[in-house]
Formats: sequence, structure tokens, C-alpha cells
Amino acid sequence: MDHWVHQMNIDSNKTSHLYIQIYCGIKQLISNKKLKHGDRLPAVRKMAGVLNVNTVTVVKAYELLERDELVIKKRGSGTYVNFENNDIMGNVLVNEEWEKIQLKQLNQMTERNISITEETINFASANPSPDLFPVDDFKEALLEVLDRDKGFAFSYQDSRGYAPLRQRMADLAKCNGISTTSEEIQIISGAQQGIDLVAKGILQPGDTVLIERPSYSGAIAAFYSRGSRVKDIELTSDGIDIDLFEKTVKELRPKLVYLMPNFQNPTGISYTLEKLKAIIELSEKYDFTILEDDYVNEFAFDSSSVNTLKSLDRYQRVIYIKSFSKIFMPGLRLGYMIVPSKVYSTLVMAKQATDISTSGLLQRALERYFHHGKWDRNMKKLTNEYYKRFCAIKSILESDLSKEITCRIPSGGLNFWIELPKGVDASLLYSKVANKNIVFAPGRLFYLNKPVYERLRISIAAVSLNQIEIGMTEMIRLIRSTDKLINTEKWSGEDKEPIL
Amino acid sequence: MDHWVHQMNIDSNKTSHLYIQIYCGIKQLISNKKLKHGDRLPAVRKMAGVLNVNTVTVVKAYELLERDELVIKKRGSGTYVNFENNDIMGNVLVNEEWEKIQLKQLNQMTERNISITEETINFASANPSPDLFPVDDFKEALLEVLDRDKGFAFSYQDSRGYAPLRQRMADLAKCNGISTTSEEIQIISGAQQGIDLVAKGILQPGDTVLIERPSYSGAIAAFYSRGSRVKDIELTSDGIDIDLFEKTVKELRPKLVYLMPNFQNPTGISYTLEKLKAIIELSEKYDFTILEDDYVNEFAFDSSSVNTLKSLDRYQRVIYIKSFSKIFMPGLRLGYMIVPSKVYSTLVMAKQATDISTSGLLQRALERYFHHGKWDRNMKKLTNEYYKRFCAIKSILESDLSKEITCRIPSGGLNFWIELPKGVDASLLYSKVANKNIVFAPGRLFYLNKPVYERLRISIAAVSLNQIEIGMTEMIRLIRSTDKLINTEKWSGEDKEPIL
Repeated sequence: MDHWVHQMNIDSNKTSHLYIQIYCGIKQLISNKKLKHGDRLPAVRKMAGVLNVNTVTVVKAYELLERDELVIKKRGSGTYVNFENNDIMGNVLVNEEWEKIQLKQLNQMTERNISITEETINFASANPSPDLFPVDDFKEALLEVLDRDKGFAFSYQDSRGYAPLRQRMADLAKCNGISTTSEEIQIISGAQQGIDLVAKGILQPGDTVLIERPSYSGAIAAFYSRGSRVKDIELTSDGIDIDLFEKTVKELRPKLVYLMPNFQNPTGISYTLEKLKAIIELSEKYDFTILEDDYVNEFAFDSSSVNTLKSLDRYQRVIYIKSFSKIFMPGLRLGYMIVPSKVYSTLVMAKQATDISTSGLLQRALERYFHHGKWDRNMKKLTNEYYKRFCAIKSILESDLSKEITCRIPSGGLNFWIELPKGVDASLLYSKVANKNIVFAPGRLFYLNKPVYERLRISIAAVSLNQIEIGMTEMIRLIRSTDKLINTEKWSGEDKEPIL
Repeated sequence: MDHWVHQMNIDSNKTSHLYIQIYCGIKQLISNKKLKHGDRLPAVRKMAGVLNVNTVTVVKAYELLERDELVIKKRGSGTYVNFENNDIMGNVLVNEEWEKIQLKQLNQMTERNISITEETINFASANPSPDLFPVDDFKEALLEVLDRDKGFAFSYQDSRGYAPLRQRMADLAKCNGISTTSEEIQIISGAQQGIDLVAKGILQPGDTVLIERPSYSGAIAAFYSRGSRVKDIELTSDGIDIDLFEKTVKELRPKLVYLMPNFQNPTGISYTLEKLKAIIELSEKYDFTILEDDYVNEFAFDSSSVNTLKSLDRYQRVIYIKSFSKIFMPGLRLGYMIVPSKVYSTLVMAKQATDISTSGLLQRALERYFHHGKWDRNMKKLTNEYYKRFCAIKSILESDLSKEITCRIPSGGLNFWIELPKGVDASLLYSKVANKNIVFAPGRLFYLNKPVYERLRISIAAVSLNQIEIGMTEMIRLIRSTDKLINTEKWSGEDKEPIL
């Protein structure tokens, strides 16, 4: 019997299940490189004998490792470690290696698609649910455009965006304390397209991008797709550690740094003003571009002031992206970027090579919607509704009810980043609560590598107050009974919706 | 005086202007590498003396070379060749070299944007003009969706596309003789996005892509953006030469081959069935993917049968792209792809990383539009109208009126690829006819490298019969008087529209 088996610290007196202990133990050995690619795990019966556990316990542990693609079963031969731990994040990703990552991302992305019905208690979606959409007002705007512009509403639009809408966006940015003009505005088909355009325009294969840990997986996918080296920096309670950040920047010389300074996705963390100022200074000192994804600065429930990097951008180094998916309607696929003049034409070119221009009809209708003062009214309604939900979850998380889970309560935004008891894997919990028609976003979707399995993201965007009550109670009940957590089936479903 | 000056064959008895002769002569010397990067051209007065021409003639020639970025003027020092002729197309494009190309593309793309007013005679656009759009019918479809689906019309759509629309697209493809199912359909925000997704999903930096010469510059931009090596193959009257194609494939081992087999853009050329079959066989023999851009097979005016590569795709190697910009409304930004199952999930991932999904409202409305049988009715109307225009231009081109220009009349489609007299630069003619509020697409926009300046593309999509008569007459008149063709100003304008 291999000596490493004896290094595992399996204890039936611990609160976590034995199979979880074995699973975590072997995972750690792989992570420490004590178990290497190609190593054979002991046969189930042998392993069970040495550890003095039931064979079913070992089977369960192996199944979890297989699900994570850390081991592979070969028929009639045994179970082998199938993970080359060479910390590829610091290396150039080329050819096969790069393809492997792409495929891994694909699997992640596909898993992010979940089946949602009208009855589903949807903690997974960070986008407003259809009942919150101002359908009638937007329909009016659409009709006004069709009557006014007729066929021209279906002509190609300027790649930069419909000029009157660009002006509205510049005005909107000013309300957020950002001084800009329509000459810096680029209309985009959603924030994901903005990130993709920046990746196309700024990054060349082999360039380094720094991101927060954890972060938005759609951004990671876009950076990988450019053949970039991506490196993450752990978030602390008020943003990344500036000393560690400078050290990393000095060493890796990133071309781009991707940040969400307010109510970050998924953690809800916000940066202090001092940190934002320090980052701006470092961008000039070390010559990198900042991509600021302004996820939802609008929902500042418990914070007195919100600062964006763009409003502090004295060196013209910040590209600012604003999604309307979270604060308006995701299916509209509209948003805007503020782009410093020195890279503006490069990004317009990227837009042209990507999809030429965004639908003119939708751009024109949105402009009319702003014109009639509907935007502010809707934002107010949305903010009020979200504030109630925010308080509801907050009070549950702060109550005795939820002593099994921990959460640093954010000062605003749509997301709560929850930590489960050690050994309780959120992906497994996912399958369990899905049976009760409750969904959330498993935390591992937000990690570049070495995911933390005990994390999950709860969003308030698509759940009613009543659903929050029922859903949270049920989830906490299920976390308490951590039996039968193994589920190696893949999630599937016909009509799918991405978790963003 | 440098000896090469004497090699130029300048003759005042030739029909083309002396400055054009000088310009073409020096260009050829640069192309032959007889003049190299950094070489100094003779001072204007010296050059004029040796060639026995007016100094103004030399000035004009130098201005043209400067416009083409082949030479650069250094104040107080002279004019220098500024073109590194190392035929970069066969090499990997990295870093600065790649950036240079990107910038060149940017300039091309920006130049492709032209100012259009309602009075403009627009031979440049290959997209239907707003008066041809079925605005009322589409508005009805939009209203039906809004009433039926309410907020759900603004939710995220499945990244693959709205399922009922994918079914309609599979049915539409079947009408084109392509056997497919909705499982192979990916909805895209226009053909440009389709090309971009294929580039993202299939190509890695350094991969080789073969294209036709000339070809669609938006595709070239998308391939370059992936860091690909792009190589073009000259078109003959019935498609690329198969022997030359096989030789090139054997040598360069392309990952992707981008073709427009019917009524190609910009040439109007169509492939024979034999050639298409041969290309399919070669794709299997040499293991490459074919990207078939089905530009406008629908407008087969003078040809009895139209064949697509996809309908012959016995090895599942063809990705087929269908744009609706040419056959419906460009500003809608909708189209579809047929993707073989082995690369389907890769392209869905690329779509997610690019913009998550296409607007659900527009997808749903288009599905309703099909449901009510409006698509076929509109296609019939469009085809009848285009056929009249096609015949009108054809009869002008075949008449004595236009003996200055030559054109191989296509058997259908929207484009006529016109050759001007030797030395008459279409880019210069462009400025001249633009003064008369007539626009066309200068041929050089469609070349990967070494553009043919004497070519231009005339499209029938956005001109009335009356405009065709007036516009063609005026253009031919201007071609006859080739004086004052120098114009080194850049074209600009506030509201711009891309030439596609």
C-alpha cells in the first residue's frame, strides 16, 4: 500500500462525512504534487481496508474526484490521477494546452446554463426577472421609432453607435460622476461584448491580464480566447491588497487589469477610495490599461458614496464598461463603454470586425425611452424593490437560523457570497436544492483555477420576498443534512439560461 | 542620378497621364524590390529634368505614392521609400508587425464608412435601401411577440438561439437544398459575427487561412484579429483554380478556407459544381475546415441552378453562414450558421464569450414573421425588384456607352466588378464622383495586399432604376475625363455607413 494513504487524516469523529474527508485528502495530495499525473489510486477494497471505512465510502470519494476530472477510471485497470499540475496560469497558453483550457471553459460555460421554469426559486440569476421589465414603456418607444424612422430603423447603424444614444450615455455617465463626452462612447451589445472588444483591441497572444479572485468567468473566457496569460489576485474585504498587487504587476507586467470596484461579482466587495486612487497611480507607473466593469454601482444600499475608477482616471488609462443587463433588461443586449481617445479607433475597429454594429432599432428605442424620462423612473422602482430583497436576505443571514453558513454582508449590489461548512461542496448542494426547484450559482464557476468548492453566490435579482423566505429556509435545511450529497450526473435541460 | 529612373518607361504618347505613368513605374520598382525601404527618391526638380516632364507632374506622382503609404516625406531631407516588402502574408504576424496590419485594417475599415444622404446615388451599398424593408409586417411581428411573451421577450435567450427560430432556419436551409436539423443551427448577429465566431473557435495564432482574391475585407479583419496567416488565391471566371488551390493547400496546410461560391463579393463569380465537389474532397484529404459564406445565392437571375458547398458536405467539414443583411434588413443584425456537430459546442462557447446571446425580441419577431408566411413574399418582391436593376446595369455595361470600362457580367447576385482603364485609380475616381453625390466601393478595399487600383464594385441593392441610369452615365463621363484625379484628402463625414 502506498505510503501517502497513511498521510491522510481520516477521522470518523469529525463532523464532515468520511467520503468528503477522503475526497478532500486526495485532492490536497494532488494539489501538493504528492500524487502525480498517471499515479494509480489503490483499489477500492484495499483503500477501504487500510482506512477502516466502508467500500461505499471510498467509491463515493472516487466518484467525486472523477467528476472533478482529477482522476480517470480505466476499465479493468483501476483509477489513475489525471491532472497535470503545472500551474499553467503563469505560462503562455499555446496549442494543445490552450485548447484544453478552452474546452474546460466550455464545460464551465455549459454548466452555467440551467433549466428555469416560472416556479423556480432563482438565486442564480443576477438579472432582473421578466416581471420587473418595463415592457409597456419600451414598446411605446419601439412604436415611436418605427413610426418616425420607418425603414431607417433597420439600416446599418454607425459602428460607434447611434449618435443621439451616445449623447444620452455620456449624460448618464455624468450622473455617475464621470466626466465624458459622446466622442468617448462606444455602444455595445452587452458587457460581455465590451470585454471581448477590449480583449481583441488591447491583447495579443501571450500578454498578461490580472483579474480579481474570484471573478466573472465570462471575462476569463474572453481573455483566454485571446491566448492571454491570466493571473488572479485574492480579494480582501475592501478590494485587492495594493502591496501584493504592485508586487505582481512589477513581476508580470500585465497589459490589462480587469476590476469590478463596486459590489463585485460574485463577492459583493467594494474598494476604498484610497485603493482606487492607488491603482490609478500604479497604472501610470507600470503602464497598464484598466478595464473597469461597472457591474451595479447603482444599488448602493448601505454605503454613503460610490467611487468609480473612471471618475479618478487622470491618466486616461481606464476603459469603463456599463452593462444594462443588471439594471434594465438583459435580453435587450445593450450597454456602453467609455474609451480613452488614444484607443478609441482601435476598439471601433474591433467592433466592426466583431459584428459591424448593434441593432439600430433597439438603440433608437432606448434613446426615445431616455428622452421620455422613463429610465430614471424605472431605476427608482428597481432600486426600491431590490432594497427590500437585500434587507430580507441580510436579516436571514444575520439571524441564528443560518449559523451553518457565513457571509460577509456587502454594502449594496445584488450578490451574497456565502461560505458553506468545510467539506460541503456547493456543486453537490446545487443538485440537491435543484430537486426542490431552487437554483444558485456554485462558487467554483468564478475561479480561474483551484476553485473553492465551499462557496456559492446568492443573487436577489430574480426572487420575490416570499421566494427568498422559502428558498433560504429550504437551502439551510438541506445544508444541515449533508447526506446523499454525491451526484455525478451532469445538469442538463432544454431551455437554458446562462448564470452571469 | 540613380540608374533605376532610366528604367522607367515614361511616354507622353501613351493615353494615360504622365504622372500616373511615373506613379505606376515607381510602384512597380518597389514591388520588384528594386527600390527598397529607406531608399531616397530623387528630388522633384532632378526627377523632372531626367524624365523631361513638368515638376508638377512629379509632385503629383509623389503625392499618390505618399497617399498609398509607399513613400514618406521628411521635411528638409527628401522623399523616402517607406515600405518593407517582405511579403508578410506567409509569415506569422506577431507583435508590432501584427499591430501594423491591424492599424492598416482599421484605416481600411474607417474609409469604408461613407456619408450617405437620401439624394446619394449609392452604388456602394450591397444592402437593400430602407424603402425595400417590410417595416409594417415586421412591426406586426414585434407587437405580436410583445403581447404574447411580455417581459420574456427581453430575457436572456439560449446562446444557440431561440429554439423555434432555429427550427425555421433549418427549414429555410432545406429549401436551399441543404439537409440539416435545428441541432446544427446557431443564430448569429449577422454574418460578420459568424465569421468572428469561427475565427475564435477554429483558429489559433499562427494558423493559416486561405481566402479568395479579392474577398470580403471584414473576413480578412476577423482572421487577422486572431493572429492568423492569411493567404489569398486569385479567382478565375469560375472560381479558384483547383490545381493551384491543391498546391497551395499542400504547401501551407491551412486550418480554414473561406469561400463565397455563389455570386462572390465583390466579383460576382460563381463556382462550377465540379469545382465545389473537388474542394469538398480536398478538405477531407488535407484536413481543413471550409467556411462557406453564402452571400446571396437567392438572386440567381441568369443561372439555372445554384449549388452550395454545404449541400455537398459529405465529410461534415463545411460551416455555412447565411447573412440576412442582403436579403432582408441589415440593421436587424440577424443571420444563422449551420455547424457540424463536432465543432458545434466550441462555437456555442465562442458565442457566449462574445456577447452571450442575440437579442431575444428580434429573434422572436423574426420567427413570427416566418410563421405568417411573410418571408417568402418579401423575397419574391425583392428578387423581382433586383432583377430589373440587374438587367438595367447589364444593358449599360454591354452597350457602346461604356467602352472605357470592362466587366465580366455575373449570372446573378448584387455586384458588378468593373475594371477601369489602366492607370485610372478607382480611389481617385471615388472622390471625383462623390462630388456628384455618387458613391461606389473602390476595389482596393477587397484586397489582402497589393491592391489592384483600377477595380471598383457597383452594387444594385440601394439604387433605383432611374438612379442607375443617371449614376452610370455620370460615372462613365467622369472616367473619360481623367484630369485632376489627384486627391490626397481623407474622406470623412459625420454619419457613416459601412460598405459591405
